[in-house]
Amino acid sequence: MIKVGIIGCGRIGQVHAISVAKNPACTLAAVFDPGTEQARTVADAYGCSVAGSAEALMHSADVDLVVIASPTDAHEAQFLGAARAGKAVFGEKPIDNNLARAHATVRALREIGAPVMLGFNRRFDRDHATLQAEVRAGRIGRVQSLQLASRGPNSVPSLKYLQASGGFYRDKCVHFLDLIRWISGEEPVEVVAMGSVLADRSVAEAHDVDTAAIVVRLASGALAHIDNARRAAYGYDDRIEVFGTAGVIESRRLHRGNVMRITAEGVQLDALPANSFERYGDSYAAALNAFVVKLQGAEVDIPGIEDGLMAQVMAEAATLSAREGRIVAIAEIMASLGIPARL
Amino acid sequence: MIKVGIIGCGRIGQVHAISVAKNPACTLAAVFDPGTEQARTVADAYGCSVAGSAEALMHSADVDLVVIASPTDAHEAQFLGAARAGKAVFGEKPIDNNLARAHATVRALREIGAPVMLGFNRRFDRDHATLQAEVRAGRIGRVQSLQLASRGPNSVPSLKYLQASGGFYRDKCVHFLDLIRWISGEEPVEVVAMGSVLADRSVAEAHDVDTAAIVVRLASGALAHIDNARRAAYGYDDRIEVFGTAGVIESRRLHRGNVMRITAEGVQLDALPANSFERYGDSYAAALNAFVVKLQGAEVDIPGIEDGLMAQVMAEAATLSAREGRIVAIAEIMASLGIPARL
Amino acid sequence: MIKVGIIGCGRIGQVHAISVAKNPACTLAAVFDPGTEQARTVADAYGCSVAGSAEALMHSADVDLVVIASPTDAHEAQFLGAARAGKAVFGEKPIDNNLARAHATVRALREIGAPVMLGFNRRFDRDHATLQAEVRAGRIGRVQSLQLASRGPNSVPSLKYLQASGGFYRDKCVHFLDLIRWISGEEPVEVVAMGSVLADRSVAEAHDVDTAAIVVRLASGALAHIDNARRAAYGYDDRIEVFGTAGVIESRRLHRGNVMRITAEGVQLDALPANSFERYGDSYAAALNAFVVKLQGAEVDIPGIEDGLMAQVMAEAATLSAREGRIVAIAEIMASLGIPARL
Amino acid sequence: MIKVGIIGCGRIGQVHAISVAKNPACTLAAVFDPGTEQARTVADAYGCSVAGSAEALMHSADVDLVVIASPTDAHEAQFLGAARAGKAVFGEKPIDNNLARAHATVRALREIGAPVMLGFNRRFDRDHATLQAEVRAGRIGRVQSLQLASRGPNSVPSLKYLQASGGFYRDKCVHFLDLIRWISGEEPVEVVAMGSVLADRSVAEAHDVDTAAIVVRLASGALAHIDNARRAAYGYDDRIEVFGTAGVIESRRLHRGNVMRITAEGVQLDALPANSFERYGDSYAAALNAFVVKLQGAEVDIPGIEDGLMAQVMAEAATLSAREGRIVAIAEIMASLGIPARL
Repeated sequence: MIKVGIIGCGRIGQVHAISVAKNPACTLAAVFDPGTEQARTVADAYGCSVAGSAEALMHSADVDLVVIASPTDAHEAQFLGAARAGKAVFGEKPIDNNLARAHATVRALREIGAPVMLGFNRRFDRDHATLQAEVRAGRIGRVQSLQLASRGPNSVPSLKYLQASGGFYRDKCVHFLDLIRWISGEEPVEVVAMGSVLADRSVAEAHDVDTAAIVVRLASGALAHIDNARRAAYGYDDRIEVFGTAGVIESRRLHRGNVMRITAEGVQLDALPANSFERYGDSYAAALNAFVVKLQGAEVDIPGIEDGLMAQVMAEAATLSAREGRIVAIAEIMASLGIPARL
Repeated sequence: MIKVGIIGCGRIGQVHAISVAKNPACTLAAVFDPGTEQARTVADAYGCSVAGSAEALMHSADVDLVVIASPTDAHEAQFLGAARAGKAVFGEKPIDNNLARAHATVRALREIGAPVMLGFNRRFDRDHATLQAEVRAGRIGRVQSLQLASRGPNSVPSLKYLQASGGFYRDKCVHFLDLIRWISGEEPVEVVAMGSVLADRSVAEAHDVDTAAIVVRLASGALAHIDNARRAAYGYDDRIEVFGTAGVIESRRLHRGNVMRITAEGVQLDALPANSFERYGDSYAAALNAFVVKLQGAEVDIPGIEDGLMAQVMAEAATLSAREGRIVAIAEIMASLGIPARL
Repeated sequence: MIKVGIIGCGRIGQVHAISVAKNPACTLAAVFDPGTEQARTVADAYGCSVAGSAEALMHSADVDLVVIASPTDAHEAQFLGAARAGKAVFGEKPIDNNLARAHATVRALREIGAPVMLGFNRRFDRDHATLQAEVRAGRIGRVQSLQLASRGPNSVPSLKYLQASGGFYRDKCVHFLDLIRWISGEEPVEVVAMGSVLADRSVAEAHDVDTAAIVVRLASGALAHIDNARRAAYGYDDRIEVFGTAGVIESRRLHRGNVMRITAEGVQLDALPANSFERYGDSYAAALNAFVVKLQGAEVDIPGIEDGLMAQVMAEAATLSAREGRIVAIAEIMASLGIPARL
Repeated sequence: MIKVGIIGCGRIGQVHAISVAKNPACTLAAVFDPGTEQARTVADAYGCSVAGSAEALMHSADVDLVVIASPTDAHEAQFLGAARAGKAVFGEKPIDNNLARAHATVRALREIGAPVMLGFNRRFDRDHATLQAEVRAGRIGRVQSLQLASRGPNSVPSLKYLQASGGFYRDKCVHFLDLIRWISGEEPVEVVAMGSVLADRSVAEAHDVDTAAIVVRLASGALAHIDNARRAAYGYDDRIEVFGTAGVIESRRLHRGNVMRITAEGVQLDALPANSFERYGDSYAAALNAFVVKLQGAEVDIPGIEDGLMAQVMAEAATLSAREGRIVAIAEIMASLGIPARL
């Protein structure tokens, strides 16, 4: 039985608490949040203790695995602290909003040698995982192009969130940049990004964009499209399509249910999920479970700390491309940071 | 916290154990099975005690709610025993394979006045429930016809199971006969059934059928079709469609996932679920939860013991219709048993 | 170039005129309709002559193939007259509303030996034809059950039409009774039908039904469901599903287009076709073309005059079943008319 | 009755001949092709004359409308010749592979004032047209992004064709560049394109690409993705999706039919069309008909000669972007040719 501690009891921290509760191989031992009341609520719901500090939780003998669900600026210290305390680390992205610091953290974590997993939960979506496995198995031949569309939910984060987010490319598109590498099994070569503010003025206030188009050229020459929007009037909409020399495969957009009505007013299907938590509900538990069974010795493919860094490198390239209106080579980002072309 | 005891630790008993484990409002207190080893396995997995007998479990002060997942011939005694012991009863159908005895049991349970729920889990399927709610809300106007198709899984029960089952109409079609009343909110008037053995010789050995067509005329004149088959080469296939004066609504067949591939070999969607447990997985937990929240005071619509009896009356009419090659009035079944035309 | 004459210039006659115009292997030579103006309009549109009478058209040297699109009570005389005049005959169903007279007509036509095709256009629908060919080729193994649903259009025929129609089973269900034989390649053994008036009072005035459920047992034991309604609030809705020992195949309901919108108001697909002419538009031309290429010597499967008679026998059985509330053997209908059990 | 002459009797010329034959408002008067035999075959099939030369056809008093379906290098002379002869001109794209010459042709045609339509038949596809009309009507609010995917057919043109084609961006992507303007009603601002050779070595021999990704920024800031491939192993695959502030709308990929089979081998839908002629069959006739009814005075939106030029400008920008690895402003292309920023 793996004993889990969670740092950060906001929405995503609570989602992880549910995943732990459902998982027969682990148990929730402790939680911490600077907002004591929130930590207490979670602790009461799952019958665990409240740690006095993040440090205390990391060093508790009752904790084997630390889930880091705190704000980004605490990540570096907590990733390293938990790893040095000999714990397994399951951390939310990004490693750090500053790419150089993220790189340094990755190098330090490698030296420590602790097991680390990045919370790229979309890799654990049932349909995306089917698609990835079949692409890798060659079902559609050699990959020629990828399309990753994601829009929603029907709300825009607060100005405060937007300002601390690192921008749309780093905050949201990064998920899809990770998926491109995971699905194709290839490294990126160059990136071009264009962004616009079309829907929400508050996004402009944060000097951010609400609509982004990215094209990534992969090492083989395959071309990946990302079509992302901050908000969708109709819920949460995600689809992936991969085209190759032998065919095409699509992880289709998901509806809330599978009911159709036909009346004089028209033909109506069930709505889309409201937000990413509804859309990707099961994937959070599947992600945590993958880490758990890996810690128990199983051979499982998980997003490691280097995957987190590479997704950030791609997001950095996209951010730069959009800012300077040019195609950006991945090598340029790597070189500017003194990172070798391949990690 | 409602303390649950489960009698019967076969497949369906184990499914209920999972539902209890997932449900934050109840806890598994005790299990019993004549096969002691099986009971022990379940008890170990969920950390509960093993009762020495069904009787002991029913009378245990540690048990508030008794789930009856035992073979049919034990149902009558256990339904009544648990109710008399002051427990809430969640029982698998049928009440008893003998309709007269089932009726007597219903009358006795009414006198005792215990809360009883029948395990018609399909009522708690996400999509079927959406369909039912919208039909009842008048979205498709007045109901004119219903189609309920169900086939699978890809195997036939053992000859022993078939011989004890009461026949296909009582064993499987009964689920859909229940759904007809639940969806339409109407009582049946007459039933015609035809059956054939087309796929599996072992079914003929049991003097049963593997393919059945039933039409039920409801009180309003609405006409319901049931198209059921014991086995489907391709998995488990369930769909419901209701047509009315203002439109049609369909709870569509469910696939295992939502991925499409297109290659030179053709266009391929994800397969269907393998069996009813995969198809209706979530509905078992939803069914138990409905009973739990009802016991806690919520207004919830659950299938009661009378619903179980009416479904059996319809199954009896279908069995008789198929045997005698004629349309059978529900009133005939009711009268022959001394049951009033309306329960 | 086959020269075609059309008797009857109402809606269906006009549909056939379009089919002739589109077909490069035939040309419209003459039309006749007692309503001279209607005949003139069609003749002008397609540049052909107007015959002075049905007789004159049948005997015209300018006509090789007579399309009979006149009211039912003229069918017997016109089928026989055209055949005796040495023409090929493409006739709309029914042969005659009186089954005995229809049988006599079939026998007379057989003696004459003229090529005759019945206008069961649904057999020529692209998707239904795919389904039939694959069922016959064994793709789903041996057939266990069939579902044929058809509802619409969004209007009820006039009282006058209803009174002359022979009733819903003979007028509309007959199309699906024909499809059952065609798809399965089997003869019917017994029929049970239930009908109701649920949507339109005018239908009751005509002593007819607007909702019908039919089950047909075929020679192999396979069971076919027909779910038909005179009117559908949402257009014209046709679907066929066939289940067998090796799988299931479905000719799915057709929408007007293939566009999906998702907004805050919901998820909307394109509407269904408005009526059978829109739904089955291309099948009319395909049906005529099949006859044309058969006359030119090709091996094509067409619905012959005996198919028309058998569909009427089944409709007669359904009508009797609904009236008398019992299962009717096909042999009973055959015997009562002195028709041998197999044509 | 509009009398049509067709110059060029290859595949596309024959498609136009069929469209004329089907259209009740026009008739095929004459055809011309340097390959006399091909012209003769078409003329015999439709009962028209064979002109002695393109010039003779253009000047024939028997011709009102000239369809130009000849090789690209003949377009300039024939567009201008037919227009000067007082004919209406329906011409296949491109106007000319040399953009400057295309621009000069447009200017000359404007002076002549003849009615001219470009053969962008995809604008007349049933589903694309529905999508465009609803986007323009504001159903999805203000446009934020567009996705246009097109791949296929399952073959690569000959090396000779590829070398004369002007390259993939000008030859195929140009259709989708046109659709972007038509759907959004907006002008392009900048274009970025990346291309690769991933599937077919013969394409590399022609110094062309077989896979292209293009992003176009429109005047409003909306971002359009084009994902095009020369060949698809599985047929012809086209889909369009437009996302806006109020929703998303999709013209979904089309299958050959609407039949589904489910067997132990999997779930199989009908294949995709084999090529663009099967996919867009009806749109050719609809395009010609739009021109015909416009000539007869109706208010119809057709792709004019300026639309053809703007699509070429965009294709030029894409070609340049791919070659130089940079984002190209539309204004740059316009300026380099002395074309004002807006036509």
